[in-house]
Amino acid sequence: MAYLKNTWYVAALSTEVGADELFHRKILGTSVLMYRKQDGTAVAMRDRCPHRFAPLHLGKKIGDEIVCHYHALQFDCSGQCTHNPHGEGNIPKAAKVQTFPLQERYGFIWIWMGDEAADPGLLPDYSPLDDGPPTGVGHTYMHMRANYELIIDNVMDLSHIDHVHGEIISTRGQLSPIVPQVRETENSVFARWEWKQTPPILVLAGFLPHPEKEARHFFDVTWMPPANIQLSVGGAQGDTPFEQGVGAYDLHTTTPETETSTHYFFATRRNHNTHDADFNAMKLQAMRDAFEKEDGPIIYGVQEEMETTDFFSLNPVLMSNDVAAVRARRLLARLIAKEEEGAGGSAAPAARTAAA
Amino acid sequence: MAYLKNTWYVAALSTEVGADELFHRKILGTSVLMYRKQDGTAVAMRDRCPHRFAPLHLGKKIGDEIVCHYHALQFDCSGQCTHNPHGEGNIPKAAKVQTFPLQERYGFIWIWMGDEAADPGLLPDYSPLDDGPPTGVGHTYMHMRANYELIIDNVMDLSHIDHVHGEIISTRGQLSPIVPQVRETENSVFARWEWKQTPPILVLAGFLPHPEKEARHFFDVTWMPPANIQLSVGGAQGDTPFEQGVGAYDLHTTTPETETSTHYFFATRRNHNTHDADFNAMKLQAMRDAFEKEDGPIIYGVQEEMETTDFFSLNPVLMSNDVAAVRARRLLARLIAKEEEGAGGSAAPAARTAAA
Amino acid sequence: MAYLKNTWYVAALSTEVGADELFHRKILGTSVLMYRKQDGTAVAMRDRCPHRFAPLHLGKKIGDEIVCHYHALQFDCSGQCTHNPHGEGNIPKAAKVQTFPLQERYGFIWIWMGDEAADPGLLPDYSPLDDGPPTGVGHTYMHMRANYELIIDNVMDLSHIDHVHGEIISTRGQLSPIVPQVRETENSVFARWEWKQTPPILVLAGFLPHPEKEARHFFDVTWMPPANIQLSVGGAQGDTPFEQGVGAYDLHTTTPETETSTHYFFATRRNHNTHDADFNAMKLQAMRDAFEKEDGPIIYGVQEEMETTDFFSLNPVLMSNDVAAVRARRLLARLIAKEEEGAGGSAAPAARTAAA
Repeated sequence: MAYLKNTWYVAALSTEVGADELFHRKILGTSVLMYRKQDGTAVAMRDRCPHRFAPLHLGKKIGDEIVCHYHALQFDCSGQCTHNPHGEGNIPKAAKVQTFPLQERYGFIWIWMGDEAADPGLLPDYSPLDDGPPTGVGHTYMHMRANYELIIDNVMDLSHIDHVHGEIISTRGQLSPIVPQVRETENSVFARWEWKQTPPILVLAGFLPHPEKEARHFFDVTWMPPANIQLSVGGAQGDTPFEQGVGAYDLHTTTPETETSTHYFFATRRNHNTHDADFNAMKLQAMRDAFEKEDGPIIYGVQEEMETTDFFSLNPVLMSNDVAAVRARRLLARLIAKEEEGAGGSAAPAARTAAA
Repeated sequence: MAYLKNTWYVAALSTEVGADELFHRKILGTSVLMYRKQDGTAVAMRDRCPHRFAPLHLGKKIGDEIVCHYHALQFDCSGQCTHNPHGEGNIPKAAKVQTFPLQERYGFIWIWMGDEAADPGLLPDYSPLDDGPPTGVGHTYMHMRANYELIIDNVMDLSHIDHVHGEIISTRGQLSPIVPQVRETENSVFARWEWKQTPPILVLAGFLPHPEKEARHFFDVTWMPPANIQLSVGGAQGDTPFEQGVGAYDLHTTTPETETSTHYFFATRRNHNTHDADFNAMKLQAMRDAFEKEDGPIIYGVQEEMETTDFFSLNPVLMSNDVAAVRARRLLARLIAKEEEGAGGSAAPAARTAAA
Repeated sequence: MAYLKNTWYVAALSTEVGADELFHRKILGTSVLMYRKQDGTAVAMRDRCPHRFAPLHLGKKIGDEIVCHYHALQFDCSGQCTHNPHGEGNIPKAAKVQTFPLQERYGFIWIWMGDEAADPGLLPDYSPLDDGPPTGVGHTYMHMRANYELIIDNVMDLSHIDHVHGEIISTRGQLSPIVPQVRETENSVFARWEWKQTPPILVLAGFLPHPEKEARHFFDVTWMPPANIQLSVGGAQGDTPFEQGVGAYDLHTTTPETETSTHYFFATRRNHNTHDADFNAMKLQAMRDAFEKEDGPIIYGVQEEMETTDFFSLNPVLMSNDVAAVRARRLLARLIAKEEEGAGGSAAPAARTAAA
């Protein structure tokens, strides 16, 4: 299947790529090696020696360079072979490894897999994740046995929450009847739900002034290509505006491994109880459990039932709750088609502002 | 591969589909949900929500209806969506799940996967299975990693018994030299072996007047499409006619899961020692062991060696013992071809009488 | 993929096929049964009954014949059916199993899978393996999850030794800078490395006059089609010629199981400490460990990265150390192409002398 290439995907959590590690992961079907230079900068290259195709992650790091384990060809961060111990030591012109531009931001390492020049400006601004103490934010990684768009569907249509998830994030049936506001730009799809409930959402209730009383709530989700969803949730009581209420600013982002397997990355920053490391760890684990144990079986079941990644070919029955997810699918399909036609390709400058 | 569609297959043992269960099984490559209404009637529908393709068996039953676990669409037994909790609750016209006619008979739930109207009259009459106390009959299910026709071959050619199976059903070499009587009708293939042996077949010997002496024996097998084989075995001594001897009335029936995996259902009713529950359980387990541990490895080996389901394409060397199995294969192939041509399709009224 | 057919492959270690065993192995994608006649001669036939395709290895041996477990057809060593217990016992003309010529030499059973008449003269002469006491030689088998040519590459380019393997066979960096002498004949590719090192190669050092002092060393590898590599290693000190030094005469030979799995056979004969059974066992285990634990992960990684068996299609960057391996690949490709054209086919008489 075709992927959007000239764009940023999350390749790894920052913490996954240790100082001395040769980290490797398959991204869009391609094996990628990632490691850190001595100055801490992360670099990425194809995890394949151009000589006899040995995985480079089996080798070792010398300074900022990589030595292939099979025949000891050495490569620098630009992928250029710098040492050939064989024969007279001549370095063949073709002895280069493909490299991939990286950016390390918001606790993630982002990778650019396309042929065009990487455009740092195309990375959406998720700086609120960085804003606050480390005990107020969590990042995690989950491997999912399903196509990445099925996970986007799941987050873009939050009406599933009351049906799939447990008490902790239940809206007590409020969410499904709401037709969310949906807004589409050249490079984003946005949806917003607003409602009242008593008691408030449990994960927030304890931090509101009156945990047993009615609260106003909202969910915002903003999808940006290829697979980033910024989700905000909030609660407030009385006349308090949402801006002064309690809430969280999350990022769900998925990176295709293969057509039917996905790297699922998640980060969450909250504005309350931000110095409680135990609560922080507990909350992150609860979110992982919700995705892996509650969404996971359904999404895997859908993938198996579909026996394809071509969602629309199966004639889904679409409803009011599907509008945002369907728009994101259709916009992504247009961007991929446009890229394949070679008509411009990079994912439109609008990307830089749509998330603002 | 093509299957005969407008016909009855066993979908489950009656006991597999409990009162509160959402039972699911892949049949002819299609995922099927089965459950019981409050009045006990079994119903079947495609195990896939038409909305986003979640497996319905992950959901729950409310009264006689099914609620999808993903977004809580509710469906009645006819597959009609009866409740949509989203937005204004409109029910899209296309929100229907395909259903499959069932009949529950002889301890099995039979399913009709074809497009034509289900014809109850096409279900062969296996009522002798019902005739007698519950301690005189056993039903069981086995999952087999082989094409269903390889299992039909196995039962239609009983000459394998002395070579594959142990003492309990050994004919002590009597069976192979016999060329069975074979009879073919428009909708059945029948074979019969008759012989004498001393001592009698062990599983029957103890219930004959003279367990150590010679007995007359017979095996009858009657295949009817798509995959039902009624097998009778009997023994008698002296002038006693078979009708007054000891014997069993069995049904072997197979349902394709995929091209190379099969649901194998078996039932056996005997006319002796019919109130002995321990013997009943022991005998059923012995039969399962014979199929799974003795036939199984050979049939799996054949499937792996074949690397196809097209038996005749491999030019098998056919012998006198293959006549019944080959006729069943050829008749089934003609019925499938006829169905695919759309020339009539349903498996001929003759089915109603052939087993009589 | 295409294999060279009219040639000898190793099918098994002699010790793998016991006197009472029905040994089976997939060779070039075909299931093969091997067993020994009462006189000890090994025979091979397709592991598939021509009747209903049951694997013959599930059956039993009676004298020199094989009885199929499913319906007891009996076959002699020529593959001819000699007994049919069914009906009147007529033996169908087509009731024959394909047989394969074998030769048992040098501790291996060699098989000819091609359609042309087997030519014993095409088996290279590896008689030095037989020359000496049993405690001076070892034979072993390893199953590898990679295409067989990747293993040939590995042995034909010994420059990998210092990078992949441990101290025991290290040349301390001497090997990579050497451009080996390479010689190609009509039916072989030969490469030789010669160098000095201090201390000598550890596996030989203890058997040289001055274990701590400099030694002269050589490696010779001679590939012959389809997949045989005779490797000799030696060491000598002072004026002693290599012929009077210490060394080993090894055979690496690979047999395709499937496109991406291989039977790897290895034998090693040494000229020193030849009566030490413990050392013999220890050395063979050390060699196995080197192949399985050191070469194995790299070769498997290469296979996974390649996602094909067509090495040249991936545009490898070839260097001076690849000359011998590449010539062997290209010569083998020419022989396969020639065989497929039917232009002569058998792997040229030159084979008989090239190893001499």
